[in-house]
Amino acid sequence: MAANINNHMLESILEQVRPLLGQGKVADYIPALASVDGNKLGIAICTVDGQRFQAGDATERFSIQSISKVLSLVAAMRQYDEDEIWQRVGKDPSGQPFNSLLQLEIEQGKPRNPFINAGALVVCDMLQSRLSAPRQRMLEIVRQLCGVADIAYDATVARSEFEHSARNAAIAWLMKSFGNFHNDVSTVLQNYFHYCALRMNCVELASTFLFLADQGRAPHLSTAVVTPLQARQINALMATSGMYQNAGEFAWRVGLPAKSGVGGGIVAIVPHEMAIAVWSPELDATGNSLAGIAVLEQLSQRLGRSVY
Amino acid sequence: MAANINNHMLESILEQVRPLLGQGKVADYIPALASVDGNKLGIAICTVDGQRFQAGDATERFSIQSISKVLSLVAAMRQYDEDEIWQRVGKDPSGQPFNSLLQLEIEQGKPRNPFINAGALVVCDMLQSRLSAPRQRMLEIVRQLCGVADIAYDATVARSEFEHSARNAAIAWLMKSFGNFHNDVSTVLQNYFHYCALRMNCVELASTFLFLADQGRAPHLSTAVVTPLQARQINALMATSGMYQNAGEFAWRVGLPAKSGVGGGIVAIVPHEMAIAVWSPELDATGNSLAGIAVLEQLSQRLGRSVY
Amino acid sequence: MAANINNHMLESILEQVRPLLGQGKVADYIPALASVDGNKLGIAICTVDGQRFQAGDATERFSIQSISKVLSLVAAMRQYDEDEIWQRVGKDPSGQPFNSLLQLEIEQGKPRNPFINAGALVVCDMLQSRLSAPRQRMLEIVRQLCGVADIAYDATVARSEFEHSARNAAIAWLMKSFGNFHNDVSTVLQNYFHYCALRMNCVELASTFLFLADQGRAPHLSTAVVTPLQARQINALMATSGMYQNAGEFAWRVGLPAKSGVGGGIVAIVPHEMAIAVWSPELDATGNSLAGIAVLEQLSQRLGRSVY
Amino acid sequence: MAANINNHMLESILEQVRPLLGQGKVADYIPALASVDGNKLGIAICTVDGQRFQAGDATERFSIQSISKVLSLVAAMRQYDEDEIWQRVGKDPSGQPFNSLLQLEIEQGKPRNPFINAGALVVCDMLQSRLSAPRQRMLEIVRQLCGVADIAYDATVARSEFEHSARNAAIAWLMKSFGNFHNDVSTVLQNYFHYCALRMNCVELASTFLFLADQGRAPHLSTAVVTPLQARQINALMATSGMYQNAGEFAWRVGLPAKSGVGGGIVAIVPHEMAIAVWSPELDATGNSLAGIAVLEQLSQRLGRSVY
Repeated sequence: MAANINNHMLESILEQVRPLLGQGKVADYIPALASVDGNKLGIAICTVDGQRFQAGDATERFSIQSISKVLSLVAAMRQYDEDEIWQRVGKDPSGQPFNSLLQLEIEQGKPRNPFINAGALVVCDMLQSRLSAPRQRMLEIVRQLCGVADIAYDATVARSEFEHSARNAAIAWLMKSFGNFHNDVSTVLQNYFHYCALRMNCVELASTFLFLADQGRAPHLSTAVVTPLQARQINALMATSGMYQNAGEFAWRVGLPAKSGVGGGIVAIVPHEMAIAVWSPELDATGNSLAGIAVLEQLSQRLGRSVY
Repeated sequence: MAANINNHMLESILEQVRPLLGQGKVADYIPALASVDGNKLGIAICTVDGQRFQAGDATERFSIQSISKVLSLVAAMRQYDEDEIWQRVGKDPSGQPFNSLLQLEIEQGKPRNPFINAGALVVCDMLQSRLSAPRQRMLEIVRQLCGVADIAYDATVARSEFEHSARNAAIAWLMKSFGNFHNDVSTVLQNYFHYCALRMNCVELASTFLFLADQGRAPHLSTAVVTPLQARQINALMATSGMYQNAGEFAWRVGLPAKSGVGGGIVAIVPHEMAIAVWSPELDATGNSLAGIAVLEQLSQRLGRSVY
Repeated sequence: MAANINNHMLESILEQVRPLLGQGKVADYIPALASVDGNKLGIAICTVDGQRFQAGDATERFSIQSISKVLSLVAAMRQYDEDEIWQRVGKDPSGQPFNSLLQLEIEQGKPRNPFINAGALVVCDMLQSRLSAPRQRMLEIVRQLCGVADIAYDATVARSEFEHSARNAAIAWLMKSFGNFHNDVSTVLQNYFHYCALRMNCVELASTFLFLADQGRAPHLSTAVVTPLQARQINALMATSGMYQNAGEFAWRVGLPAKSGVGGGIVAIVPHEMAIAVWSPELDATGNSLAGIAVLEQLSQRLGRSVY
Repeated sequence: MAANINNHMLESILEQVRPLLGQGKVADYIPALASVDGNKLGIAICTVDGQRFQAGDATERFSIQSISKVLSLVAAMRQYDEDEIWQRVGKDPSGQPFNSLLQLEIEQGKPRNPFINAGALVVCDMLQSRLSAPRQRMLEIVRQLCGVADIAYDATVARSEFEHSARNAAIAWLMKSFGNFHNDVSTVLQNYFHYCALRMNCVELASTFLFLADQGRAPHLSTAVVTPLQARQINALMATSGMYQNAGEFAWRVGLPAKSGVGGGIVAIVPHEMAIAVWSPELDATGNSLAGIAVLEQLSQRLGRSVY
C-alpha cells in the first residue's frame, strides 16, 4: 500500500522544505527548550504492514510536549468509562489559544477538548485519581507502545516547566473553583509536565502511535491498545483539535489527523495505513512546527493521502 | 464499492432513528421555517459510480439554509484567486456560535471561516463585486450541478429572513467598519438570504454535492466544478467548520466532512465514494439536525466509512 | 464663592499646561476633525452666581461630539418616565472602549450607560419616537440653554461622520436584533451625527451646562431644565461614565463630574458652584482631551474643588 | 454641620427600609457567612466635628470582607511611592464581576483597580514584600484607626475562605504568569483572607474610616493617616469602583464614595463631614447589601449630601 514511499523520497521532501528553516522561532518560554538547535529536521514513518522509513534527524530525541496529550487521553480512556471522561471535558475546537482562560471561565471550568492545556490537565487529574503511580505508569505505557526500554522523562525540562507553571496553575485552580479538578494542583502539574517532558525521536513516535492507524492494535502487543472505534474517535479529535488554533488551516493543507507539540514534533495518522512523525523545532505563530507542517503537506500531496 | 448500501438499509436506519423525533426543536426565528412539519425524515445518497439510493422524505424540498454557504464558497473559488479569498476570511474553527460578533470585533472584521454567517457574508460580498447578477448566477450553478431545472428560491423565506436580518446586518456593518465589506449591505444581505432560501430535496442535494466526493467532477458536466485539490480543501473545511460549534463532536460520532443548515438538512461527503443528504427539521442546541446527525452516525458505522 | 477665580488665573493654568500640546493626537477618523489645529487651548467658566471667566481660545467653536450625549439624555429625560429610559439603557461604567460591541452582545443589546455610543444611540432612538423633528428640537434646546441664537450643526462634519458610520450602524443593528432599537437605523444615525456635529465654543458650553451646577435651573429660563434630583443624577452619571474608560483615573486626578468629546472639548461641573468648559483638540489614548484634563486637574487643585 | 442628624432620624430610616429584608440573599459561598442572621440592620455615623450617631445593630460585629480592600490600599500607600503602586494596578472601573479572570487575561495581568479581587491581591502581594508581619501590622493599623484594642480576625471565616480559595488562587497565579505577583500565592491568600475576616461593627467602621472624610486625619492620632490629596484620591476610587459593577447605579441613587463587602457592610464617606457605616447581610445580585444601599439612599436624600 505504501509502495511509493522510500527513504529517498523522504530525504527529497526534507531538502525541499529545508529553506524554511530560519523563518520560525524555537519555543523559548523555558531555557531547556530555547537551547534546541533550530536546524534539526527529521521524519519517520511506520506502516501497518510493518515497513519503516526515515530521513534526517529521525533518531535524535526531543521533548514531545503536547503530543503527550494524546497519550494521557489514551491512558484515561483505558481507565474510565466514556461518560466519565466527556462530562468533564468537551470534544470541540476551542477557537482560542491553547492556554487561554477566557473560554474556560465562560464555560464554567469545562475545557473544550483534551488537547488544550486545560483539557489535558483535567485528564491528568483523572489519571491521578485512578493510578497509583501515574508518572511511572505513563512511562510503562509509552515504553510498551514504542517497544523501547529507555524512553524517559527529561528531568531538567520537567523542572523548568514547573518553575514556569503559573499560567497552568491558574488554569487548574480555575477548574478547581468550578469543581472540575479533584487532586492537589501541584501534584497533577508535576505529572503533566513530566508527560510533556518525555524525550522521544521520530522513529519512536511513529512506532508509538501506529496503533491509531491500525484500528487500535500495536503490532507487537497481544492486546489492543484501544478499540477500533476509539482509535477512530481519537483520530477525529486530532483532526479537529490537534493543531491548536490551526486545525482548519492544517486540514486544508495536509488533511490528516495530527497532534503537535511546542518541542517541534508533529505526529500524523493516515488511517489504515501509517503513522508519521516529523520534527523541526522552529514554530509558527500558533505554536506548530513551521517546517514540520510543510513536510507533512508535501508528503500528503505526493502520497495523495489526505483523508478528505 | 457501495455494495452494501440499498434502500432497505436506509429505511431501517430511518426507523431506528425515528424515536428521536420530538426531542429537538424546529427553527422558529422566522414564521416560514417554524411551520415546517417536525416529523419529516429523509435521506438520499449519490455514489461516484452512478448509483442512487433514498428513503423517507427524500424528495420533499426544504430550505437548505447554511448548506448554501458551501455553494457560495464554490462560486467564489471559481471567480477569485486563492489569495484574494483567504486574506478576507480564515479557515479555522471559530469556537463561537455561528452568528456571534465577539470574535469578529476582536479579530478586526476577518471572519474565522466561510461557514459562519460573517464568513459567508464576506463571500457573498465578493460575489456581488464580480458577478453581474449573483442571484440568477447561483440559480444557474445549482440547477447545473443538480441537473434539475426548476430549483428555485423560496421568496417567502427570503423575505422573512430579510425582515429579521438585524443581526446579520450588524455583522456586515461591523466588517464594513474594518474595510472587509465592499458593497451595499442591504443588497448583499438580499443575495445571502436568497441563497439560504434555496428549496431542494435530499436527492437533489446529494446529486448537487457529488462533485466533492468525486475530486471536483460532476458526472453529467463536461468541465470540472473545482480542481481535485479544491474539492479536498472544501471537504477539509467542512470537516473542521461545517457543523457550527459541533465540529469535534460530529467528527467523533460520524467522521465525515459535512455542512448543516437550520432547515434541518445536512450534506455529508465520503471522499471518493458518495455524497449523502439527510433531512430532519428538528435541531439540537447548536442548530444542527438532531435526528439527521443520528442517521449519519448509523450510516457511517454500518458502512465503516468514517474518514478517520 | 468663586472669589479666587479670575481670568488671569485661568491664563496662568493654560500657560502651565501648554507644553503638553504635541503629546496627544487630533481625532482623524474623519477629515473634518483631522484638520483642526492641535494648538488650540481654551477654557470658560460660568458660576451659579452669574460670573463669567475665560482664557485662551474660549470663543472659537469646535465640534462638541460626545458632549452632546448629555444633551440628548436631558432631552430624553424630559420626554420619558424614568423607568422607560432605564429599562433600555443602564447606568454603570462599561469598562470597554466607547464603541465596542462585545459587551453589548453579551448583555443582549442593553448598553451599559447613555454615554457610550450604544447608549446614546438608544437615547436618540427614543427621541426619534417621541419628537416630530428631533434635529430641529435639539437645536432649539441648545440655543435656549445657551442663550445664543446661531448655534448650528456643522453639516460637513455630520455628513462625514455618516459616511464613516459603519461601526455605529453595526451597534444600532445589533441592538435592533435584540429589540432595543425601534426606528430606522439610518434616520437615527443622521440625528445622532448631527448632535455630535454641534459647533459650540467654551463660553457657550459652560453657559449651556450651568443648569447641572445649579440644581437643574438655567438662570435666564423661567422653568427648570430638569429637577434638582435629576441634575444630581446626571452629574453622578458623568462622574462614573463621562470620560470613556478613564472615569476612575479622571476622578482620581480631577474629581469632578465631566463629559468629554473627541473634538477635544470637556465639560465639568462643580455642583452648586459652576460649569467649566475646556478645549484642546489633541486626545490621549482613551479619546479624552490630553491637555484639557490637565487644565481641569490644575483648576481643581487650585480651587480645592474636587467633590471627593 | 450635621445639625439635622440624630439617632431618632437614623432609627426612622431603618424602619422605612426594614421591609426590604427578605428580598436579598446572605452570602453563602462559605458556611461561616451563610449562617449570619439576615434580619440584622444597623447604622453608625462619625462626624469630623466629633459627633457619634447610631441605630439598630450598630454594635454587633460582622465580617467586613471587601471593605478591607480600602484598608490594605491605605497600608500600601503608606509603604510605596505612587508610581510603584499604579504601575501594577489601575484606577478605572472594571465593568466586570469582582472575581472575573476575563479582563485580567486580556489586560495581561494588570487588574483594573484595587477594589476588585485581583487588584486587592496585588496590593496584598505588595504588603507581603515590604512588611515583616503583614497580618499583625494590619491589625495594629485597624486598632489604631478605630481606637479599639480588641479588633480581631475571625479565624473560622479566614480558614473557611482559604478552603474555598480556588478562584482567587487562579487569579493570583494568572497574575504571577504575567510577572505581576511576586510572593508565595498561598501566603498572600492567607493574608488577604484574614483582612477580609476582620470582625468590626458599624460604630467601629465609621470611626476607622473617618480619616477619609477629614482630609486624611484621624482625630485621636497625632500624625495624618494619609495626605489630604490621598484621602481625596481614595474617595474618588471608591466613588468609581467601590460598589463592584454597580458604581454608576449607586452614584445615581446615593452619590457618595463608598465601599461594600459581601458580609453586608458598606462604608460611605461625606467628604469634609462624616463617615457612615451600614450593615445588612442580605445582598443584591451584584453582591452589595440590598437594604444597606437603601439606608444610604434615604440618608443621602434627607441630608442632601450627595457629592454630585
